[in-house]
Amino acid sequence: MAESAHTKVLILGGGFGGVYTAMALEKLFKKDNSLEIGLISNENYLVFQPMLPEVISGSIGILDVITPIRRLCPRTNLYTREVESIDLKNRVVTTSSGFRPLPYQLTYDHLVIALGNITNFSGQPGLLEHALPFKYLGDGLVIRNHIIHALEEADIEKEAEVRRALLTFVVAGGGFSGVEAVAELNDFVRAGSRSFRNINAQEIRVVLLHAGPLILPELPETLARFAQNLLQRRGVEIRLNTLLEGATAEYALLKGGEKIFTKTLISTVPSAPNPLVAALLCKKERGRIVVNEFLEVPDYPGVWALGDCAAVPDYKTGQPSPPTAQHAIREARCLAHNILANIQGTTKKRFVFDALGKMGALGHHSAVAEVFGFKLSGFLAWLMWRFIYLMKLPGLDRKIRVATDWFLDLILPPDIVQLKAERAPGIGRAHFEAGEIIFREGDKGDRLYIVVDGQVEVVKGETVLGQLGPGECFGEMALVSDSPRNATVKSRSSVNVLTVDREAFHALFTHLPPLRKLFEQIMEERLKAPMQ
Amino acid sequence: MAESAHTKVLILGGGFGGVYTAMALEKLFKKDNSLEIGLISNENYLVFQPMLPEVISGSIGILDVITPIRRLCPRTNLYTREVESIDLKNRVVTTSSGFRPLPYQLTYDHLVIALGNITNFSGQPGLLEHALPFKYLGDGLVIRNHIIHALEEADIEKEAEVRRALLTFVVAGGGFSGVEAVAELNDFVRAGSRSFRNINAQEIRVVLLHAGPLILPELPETLARFAQNLLQRRGVEIRLNTLLEGATAEYALLKGGEKIFTKTLISTVPSAPNPLVAALLCKKERGRIVVNEFLEVPDYPGVWALGDCAAVPDYKTGQPSPPTAQHAIREARCLAHNILANIQGTTKKRFVFDALGKMGALGHHSAVAEVFGFKLSGFLAWLMWRFIYLMKLPGLDRKIRVATDWFLDLILPPDIVQLKAERAPGIGRAHFEAGEIIFREGDKGDRLYIVVDGQVEVVKGETVLGQLGPGECFGEMALVSDSPRNATVKSRSSVNVLTVDREAFHALFTHLPPLRKLFEQIMEERLKAPMQ
Repeated sequence: MAESAHTKVLILGGGFGGVYTAMALEKLFKKDNSLEIGLISNENYLVFQPMLPEVISGSIGILDVITPIRRLCPRTNLYTREVESIDLKNRVVTTSSGFRPLPYQLTYDHLVIALGNITNFSGQPGLLEHALPFKYLGDGLVIRNHIIHALEEADIEKEAEVRRALLTFVVAGGGFSGVEAVAELNDFVRAGSRSFRNINAQEIRVVLLHAGPLILPELPETLARFAQNLLQRRGVEIRLNTLLEGATAEYALLKGGEKIFTKTLISTVPSAPNPLVAALLCKKERGRIVVNEFLEVPDYPGVWALGDCAAVPDYKTGQPSPPTAQHAIREARCLAHNILANIQGTTKKRFVFDALGKMGALGHHSAVAEVFGFKLSGFLAWLMWRFIYLMKLPGLDRKIRVATDWFLDLILPPDIVQLKAERAPGIGRAHFEAGEIIFREGDKGDRLYIVVDGQVEVVKGETVLGQLGPGECFGEMALVSDSPRNATVKSRSSVNVLTVDREAFHALFTHLPPLRKLFEQIMEERLKAPMQ
Repeated sequence: MAESAHTKVLILGGGFGGVYTAMALEKLFKKDNSLEIGLISNENYLVFQPMLPEVISGSIGILDVITPIRRLCPRTNLYTREVESIDLKNRVVTTSSGFRPLPYQLTYDHLVIALGNITNFSGQPGLLEHALPFKYLGDGLVIRNHIIHALEEADIEKEAEVRRALLTFVVAGGGFSGVEAVAELNDFVRAGSRSFRNINAQEIRVVLLHAGPLILPELPETLARFAQNLLQRRGVEIRLNTLLEGATAEYALLKGGEKIFTKTLISTVPSAPNPLVAALLCKKERGRIVVNEFLEVPDYPGVWALGDCAAVPDYKTGQPSPPTAQHAIREARCLAHNILANIQGTTKKRFVFDALGKMGALGHHSAVAEVFGFKLSGFLAWLMWRFIYLMKLPGLDRKIRVATDWFLDLILPPDIVQLKAERAPGIGRAHFEAGEIIFREGDKGDRLYIVVDGQVEVVKGETVLGQLGPGECFGEMALVSDSPRNATVKSRSSVNVLTVDREAFHALFTHLPPLRKLFEQIMEERLKAPMQ
């Protein structure tokens, strides 16, 4: 380990684990300039997760649940980049490029891995394409916009079936994050719908899917039951012992084959190891990096790990710590102390921590909490929730902003403006189960489809014109001639497709002659044997 | 004109002209259900333009400068869609599709055209690709994020030249909107840069380009001079009699050939007719729809126009009204009255309005104003600016939110969080002037290039390997083999290219075999005659 004038600590990850490690190091090495701290984070802010559900309803301003990392740890060099690779052998971390396409490499004496985990929909067909994840700030915004868009469309939709699907909102996962999300969503769509003149609040259906027999398995049964009853009274339909198996653009598919027709499916369930962590060669336990009680990664001196990406043993109980913010924060302090001990040759601390409690907000002035063994529910729990999290929210300016948001939210109506993010013309993905209509004759030709796997059939009236499989494309005719679809395309099996939107297609088609020739050939053949 | 039980008024455009027409109609037809009002708007909110510059600095919350249209005109049917075409002959308007690819058609008895104008960069090469427009709310957000991104990158950039370009911010256009934008930008980067440990405020360069001899030509000379001196004292470099001629990813090109190296170029200048308006066959004057003093479009009974897209004559002066919000609002009231008169057979009003005054905010507690003939500048003008616009901001809840924002802004530091919008993997465009390096040997291969027009050359060391022109592509090798660029590509002339990012390229390349074959051929030929 470098005992030189400058010891370089490099922290990977801008969540609670990473940022609080930097903060603790700055505190421990107050007037000591011999420590150089670097932090690589995708975003330049720390998201205060407990308040994230309130972004959906807008009761907290979008920017107020996040705190600039630079303010929290002013003496740390922040690299707002993505980590591309970690080379433990040569002690080098490579980041993504910025304005210029140059790779950027950083070396270290101590490496702190705090990369968390990621949402992973790969096990359930169609979720990647059609479910909305809920983990990052961006997800909260996307969900909010999506809900408002669904209300906008329902307001002018005349077909009853489509209207019902637009007004059905499904959340999968009855743990803390799913319950908090469904509570906020339910409050928001019911209050927000009043501003839509053609929507009746009675038409709105909010469904929570949960795999177990009772929601909130993290809490004692009495509290979980309280929460469950409260949500049901507020109009949330709770489906217990129910598994989400897949999704298409039209519905959520439950295990057993039941379909819930919806345009809004939010999934909080599957989390998987960060691919960067998965690529490391060190020992892992269920995808989490194994560390000793000092938070060191065995066999890699100078490498540390904490938070959701690490299996941190509590040395008293021997159990791995749960993946919560309060644990990550305590681990960060212990880890920072141990880095100091390592540099100064003093004694390291072993990690031990008893969780202080658990709380879950249920929206609309209600919550459940178990704190120091006491159980609380309803309004009092809600007041405590707000008070405790406001105190925990890092940064005085944020505390003031959130307190103000909460006050205004009490007196002002909910916001229903939809803030569309600018999107590049692009390539998307979609998933269809067998027997679905991908587009109908007469529809607008708004994109090209390329079959990734599965089979589709092209139908005109009652006649099947042909079948298409992987590597083949359809839908180009309506794009090239700017006319409505001249046939219907259905999935014959479970199908995955790439979609190329009109703008992207025209740009490529116009400017890449070999590609134009390719499509001209395809279309010529189709005209001979008319298909689509 | 339909005198039936239901008269349908359809308004196109969700700016001041359109929304205030709907509001005025709702007021006039208070208890009268015989009028059916429809409004088509791209967004479900009205942007309060005067406060838009404050979105850049974050002193007003993003959502607080916009008001939900549904709240302003609760009895109007709002269609949050894009207008696709207007058929004046058959009295039908077609909108874009929503969740389903179906066209949506609306008929009308009265049509109100309030489509405003658009930003048009087509006259200046490279601006479309590399300049940031500043007209919509989304633009404000994009600019804010871009500025923070530039600061983030400058903070970790080691090359002095690149660092200088990252810390140079250029605004083109010295009218109201350019001046307000540069004032907010200047305040924001200078205050925000304090949170970046490696940036010295002295390194920051903020430049305002203006075509005339004095900024703010809309105001009397004394006020304009006051504003000009004030901005210069605050560190804004004002370049008078200077025209922006073009831009590349590296610099802003001035008339005369001077280059200002920058990564942030904001242009507020060129506005052009909305293409929907341009496509109409009615009479126009400099692209604006000609209307009579009653705001009727001649030869098309039941069709009306107002706001920036219409040439509205003031019947007293005969002059066309300037394109400002205060005029649009007055026109809306007159127009609504005339629709009522038309339906009831009473007398129509002729449009006449004297502007009340003009105001421009200069950031940091200063402004200039000319109101009822009085000239004001400095702190008092700023107080008046805030007071008047707060009163004009529609909606009590918005007034409270903005007043709160302003109060918090006085006591809290500026926000430097960068809210990245989710982007689809995509197709982009870029422009290069002759002799620029498009990428260097050894750079990361992050995208494919397709030449739209112009010539590039491929160079390895000192050897020119070949030239490429329109319809040819380069850069695919590094993408396919995931290796650094193996040659340098330079522009030989002014060049426009399409770029296909790594994710989009791989999706298409993997799943569309004919395309893969095409690129395999291209690469094979290059290996024979090695190029790039």
